[in-house]
Amino acid sequence: MHINVHKVDMASPSDVSGLVALIDAGTVDPATIIALIGKTEGNGGANDFTRGFATLSYQLLLAKHLKLTPDEIGKRIAFVWSGGTEGVLSPHATILTKTEAQGTPDGAKRLAMGIALTDTIPPEDVGTKKHASAVADAVRRAMSEAGINGLNDVHYVQVKGPLLTPAGIADADKRGVTTATRDPNGSKVFARGAMALGVALGLGEITQAAFDATRIAADLDVYSAVAATSAGGELTSCEILLFGNSSKATSPFRMGHAVLADAIDASGVRRALASAGLTLSAEPTKDETSRIAAIFAKAEASPTGKIRGHRNTMLSDADINYERHARAALGAVIASLTSDTAIFVSGGTEHQCPPGEAPIAAIVRI
Amino acid sequence: MHINVHKVDMASPSDVSGLVALIDAGTVDPATIIALIGKTEGNGGANDFTRGFATLSYQLLLAKHLKLTPDEIGKRIAFVWSGGTEGVLSPHATILTKTEAQGTPDGAKRLAMGIALTDTIPPEDVGTKKHASAVADAVRRAMSEAGINGLNDVHYVQVKGPLLTPAGIADADKRGVTTATRDPNGSKVFARGAMALGVALGLGEITQAAFDATRIAADLDVYSAVAATSAGGELTSCEILLFGNSSKATSPFRMGHAVLADAIDASGVRRALASAGLTLSAEPTKDETSRIAAIFAKAEASPTGKIRGHRNTMLSDADINYERHARAALGAVIASLTSDTAIFVSGGTEHQCPPGEAPIAAIVRI
Amino acid sequence: MHINVHKVDMASPSDVSGLVALIDAGTVDPATIIALIGKTEGNGGANDFTRGFATLSYQLLLAKHLKLTPDEIGKRIAFVWSGGTEGVLSPHATILTKTEAQGTPDGAKRLAMGIALTDTIPPEDVGTKKHASAVADAVRRAMSEAGINGLNDVHYVQVKGPLLTPAGIADADKRGVTTATRDPNGSKVFARGAMALGVALGLGEITQAAFDATRIAADLDVYSAVAATSAGGELTSCEILLFGNSSKATSPFRMGHAVLADAIDASGVRRALASAGLTLSAEPTKDETSRIAAIFAKAEASPTGKIRGHRNTMLSDADINYERHARAALGAVIASLTSDTAIFVSGGTEHQCPPGEAPIAAIVRI
Amino acid sequence: MHINVHKVDMASPSDVSGLVALIDAGTVDPATIIALIGKTEGNGGANDFTRGFATLSYQLLLAKHLKLTPDEIGKRIAFVWSGGTEGVLSPHATILTKTEAQGTPDGAKRLAMGIALTDTIPPEDVGTKKHASAVADAVRRAMSEAGINGLNDVHYVQVKGPLLTPAGIADADKRGVTTATRDPNGSKVFARGAMALGVALGLGEITQAAFDATRIAADLDVYSAVAATSAGGELTSCEILLFGNSSKATSPFRMGHAVLADAIDASGVRRALASAGLTLSAEPTKDETSRIAAIFAKAEASPTGKIRGHRNTMLSDADINYERHARAALGAVIASLTSDTAIFVSGGTEHQCPPGEAPIAAIVRI
Repeated sequence: MHINVHKVDMASPSDVSGLVALIDAGTVDPATIIALIGKTEGNGGANDFTRGFATLSYQLLLAKHLKLTPDEIGKRIAFVWSGGTEGVLSPHATILTKTEAQGTPDGAKRLAMGIALTDTIPPEDVGTKKHASAVADAVRRAMSEAGINGLNDVHYVQVKGPLLTPAGIADADKRGVTTATRDPNGSKVFARGAMALGVALGLGEITQAAFDATRIAADLDVYSAVAATSAGGELTSCEILLFGNSSKATSPFRMGHAVLADAIDASGVRRALASAGLTLSAEPTKDETSRIAAIFAKAEASPTGKIRGHRNTMLSDADINYERHARAALGAVIASLTSDTAIFVSGGTEHQCPPGEAPIAAIVRI
Repeated sequence: MHINVHKVDMASPSDVSGLVALIDAGTVDPATIIALIGKTEGNGGANDFTRGFATLSYQLLLAKHLKLTPDEIGKRIAFVWSGGTEGVLSPHATILTKTEAQGTPDGAKRLAMGIALTDTIPPEDVGTKKHASAVADAVRRAMSEAGINGLNDVHYVQVKGPLLTPAGIADADKRGVTTATRDPNGSKVFARGAMALGVALGLGEITQAAFDATRIAADLDVYSAVAATSAGGELTSCEILLFGNSSKATSPFRMGHAVLADAIDASGVRRALASAGLTLSAEPTKDETSRIAAIFAKAEASPTGKIRGHRNTMLSDADINYERHARAALGAVIASLTSDTAIFVSGGTEHQCPPGEAPIAAIVRI
Repeated sequence: MHINVHKVDMASPSDVSGLVALIDAGTVDPATIIALIGKTEGNGGANDFTRGFATLSYQLLLAKHLKLTPDEIGKRIAFVWSGGTEGVLSPHATILTKTEAQGTPDGAKRLAMGIALTDTIPPEDVGTKKHASAVADAVRRAMSEAGINGLNDVHYVQVKGPLLTPAGIADADKRGVTTATRDPNGSKVFARGAMALGVALGLGEITQAAFDATRIAADLDVYSAVAATSAGGELTSCEILLFGNSSKATSPFRMGHAVLADAIDASGVRRALASAGLTLSAEPTKDETSRIAAIFAKAEASPTGKIRGHRNTMLSDADINYERHARAALGAVIASLTSDTAIFVSGGTEHQCPPGEAPIAAIVRI
Repeated sequence: MHINVHKVDMASPSDVSGLVALIDAGTVDPATIIALIGKTEGNGGANDFTRGFATLSYQLLLAKHLKLTPDEIGKRIAFVWSGGTEGVLSPHATILTKTEAQGTPDGAKRLAMGIALTDTIPPEDVGTKKHASAVADAVRRAMSEAGINGLNDVHYVQVKGPLLTPAGIADADKRGVTTATRDPNGSKVFARGAMALGVALGLGEITQAAFDATRIAADLDVYSAVAATSAGGELTSCEILLFGNSSKATSPFRMGHAVLADAIDASGVRRALASAGLTLSAEPTKDETSRIAAIFAKAEASPTGKIRGHRNTMLSDADINYERHARAALGAVIASLTSDTAIFVSGGTEHQCPPGEAPIAAIVRI
């Protein structure tokens, strides 16, 4: 396996010119694209349509190149968008391609990826252990596809899956089955939590017994250290993008990760990069920062309302959602070390780290 | 002269309990307070009333202690509030006290302050060279009062002064005189610019000839490196708080400053601290950060809409004002180095640095 | 009893000049003021400090006039502020004074008011039937004080009371007692609901048996038709302002009320005014509208997300809270009939009307 | 000519299911569609991408039906979207079709439309008299196409055209020509004003001499009573949609218009409907309101900051743009009379009515 990583800036949610240029220059073969992960400049909330607009725009471009319909592109390529480019964050897309190994693997552990889908998750399973188990199975398949043998080589597992919609709840009612909650918005927490627990189980971060004993969205001290999960009303099954390092890969990149203690944890950013093989100087040099291909992080408001003893106003602000405050802060801290504001920072960390902390992963050029 | 610096957290704009505790403990003698500089948790815009609420609350407290009216406190003590605690920023007040030198100065340059007022600036002078010249005179007086001899020892000059209000414009009309602009909101730029140019002239950063040749709010390549100016409709004269170091002072602090190249310039933050005598490690230690008594910075959106080549959306966001994005970003970057989110970060930098850059000053315990 | 009603515009949350003018002109005797009800120009959310700023500003004014402390004014006069002047809504205060009957009552039913306080509501009682029962008792006292004999003559009962704060929950924990919920923000719904149910019981709108059978914040088809309740973390007991008509009063006003079917129910506004004795023409005349002394209404987003079959985006908007959308809409509809934008419109209607509907009350000059 | 009008609700900016249903039912022949005018649920500001997403979504649908490319659909059909569904406003699209006259015209004046395009407006002409003159010529052509003879029969002229972009200004610089302003955002006012003045000239509302004497965006007492203009950076020429009544048309609708004195002018709404032949009762009946096919209005904050003597906070609110406050208010007032929240309300009225007022037009079923 050989994974390549290209990052393109976007002038608007429908701006696909960066990828057009890469295709036209022969740098990217559209047939090799397996995933796009990016930030769009919406508000990141329920009425953020920039994610859908970006997906449709890239689907139309790739449909033209690959002689497929936009729907077929949607099935072939994983699109992961996070809305909200607060502070210095820059709208962009990271394009991931996958081809056969180039030459013989040299034995070094290099970037590898696996993608897997679950079956349809019916409404009555959303946010439950069944949901989590389905993810766990898919995670095992993705890990196998990636050619990764052990948990220590997995660094980031991005999962997208369904939440409970009013239509889903109505359907469950009709069939006489119960759902995890009757509140569509409130189901996000259960869905994200179930998927993160599923990652933990699938990777072997927790035992089956621990899994069975954990109450989803309640026992938050049980978590995966590498999951990043999101739930959307438009999805009916779960899509897993598993990133790690494999000695069978020939990719010119290595992956690493760490956990951020809070939104100003510059030290945690350094640890994530070091885990991928890049030790930054006190004042990072251009040689160092130019090796960073992509950073994926979650940002979260502290549940105590304080960071290192001082109160902030993220949770009490009625004008700006706390996720926007948190992304603005963490994005700037990361960029102050990497000199690159095109970073993937999204929100919501149930069962993805200890409460108040946040996962961060990095892809570094070898 | 002996200046002391105390920082207190605030649980709300009217929370004066931090200062109450300092007074009750005998740590702060209310009669020695000369200025309060702080952040309040409003939106930082025209309808941010948290600044006024904080001022009234502290005035009531000090009026009781000093047997004066709130108005008399307002004349005796300088209040400088910036609204908007975006990202990790923490509502707080920095309390500055001034007493006679404690013992004989040891020859080292130590924190010194001077405060001066201009006469009333009539509407027709607001945002003009007359406004600037009045500030220049007051800056010279403040410098003298601070016992500071040369420009190199001045590190931060905070100026608050009038802008043009509808009432002021009407008054000018009645007297048949013209004003710098007829747009009250637009007058902020002229007022802040005139005051910053006045600082540059008063300190000798620019010559009288250069001053005469500069068009206010137009020739932005002429600027003071240490000014931080703000304009408010409630003011009729300008108040200057000049900070620097003097060998006549016995204060246990030293001041420094630098210019930030952009909102993620961690290196600039390190330079400002180094200028005040504190060199931070790559990962700052608690011994280092505990020496930082206060940081005052300005945050600004890049006029190009880009930082280090990547676009951000500060200027096109119709939901969140660009100043809020900029403060969220810079505040987090500074706190990621200092471990303290109670930082004074405000906006608007005309003639206070090159366009897109921003001044930063620091007070460090010796 | 003789109640007078004066409405003053406010140029900012601390602007008390309208009341100063009324006092200086001898129109209002500050010693007769019993309540102020108004709108301030904050965001209406948890970080809206304009309410506190307005209260402190009026307390300082009245403290000076009545030779009392601000705290004593707070105990003597009821202050009810709602933050958020969306759309055309105008910041203002309605000042209510109470004196002895002027001459002999003429037998007509005229505006009457009663004010009563509950004892302290301990955290374990907040949002429970005990909370509701305490309100019911106070409502009965307020009704008696107002000289109102029957439910039909009660038109508006404004109740302010405590919610659960983190400190309150901690205190309950220490004493080993449980609270209605452990979520401070979520306790608003229980507190508002309990107080509204208490009004319904106190007025006899529901029987004791119905009261006992109703689950607070769950059985929302049980409600008072005249309650308007709000909960705040700064309160420890409940304050009841009961408005209605009494034949013992000599006030030059009459009160009425109605229920609005939705946020565009102009017909409901007309019914509320008609209930107070004012029938508006198709295009209301100045003679008609000048008789309207005050309007108090609640605005609420429709739980279905639709109004008369068409979807709106109040509930899905991540930038603007749904209460702000609802207040902007209803305020404009009311003002389009009354020609006066200084209207009290606030949010949150648990047990105060059927879900999606909203109460409205009016004071009309006879 | 026979114009038909269909209004469809939209569940999201990309929801075209309403039109799909009309096409599938044979109610609308996609080949006859000439224009779509609608509201999308964005923020209405520079970063509102819901307009582009809606356009692309409808273009894809119609491209499929008409065997054309989306670009060709864009040239064939006029798309006019206004972002921002504040308060009760409902996302929707009004679909306008045009076919040959059905039978012999009966002599009654009935809804007629003309559409015309200008040539490309180069940057140096944007916002100038040349821009205005080009619009005037196109307006005359649209009027002729609509079969409308006199100004009295024109009721609404929607114009979309270019503003100055950074790229346009750079292009002008390269060619050594000057532009109306160097501020891209500031150019909106000039562009909208020029286009509205062009409408006034083209319709004969003002003389050529008055046109020549008027300074664009300065002499705001010169205006068209029926223009509604908007400017966008994606446009290079102007598109004119002219609506009125013609005795040659057989459409089952009549058009009318009025001017709203302020955002709560219910009387003005009634006048616009009466001008189209529908006199509403004091409390409008279902028979009356069901005849209203579409309403197009502009909403504007009062430049004095007051409505009927009372201050509002639209212009000082730093959290919510004044256009959003104004749309929320006016939309609710209109819907309180029409019982239909799917109304086209947009902002910006330079040279489109006296300052502070706003135009409103209505299409009513005969």
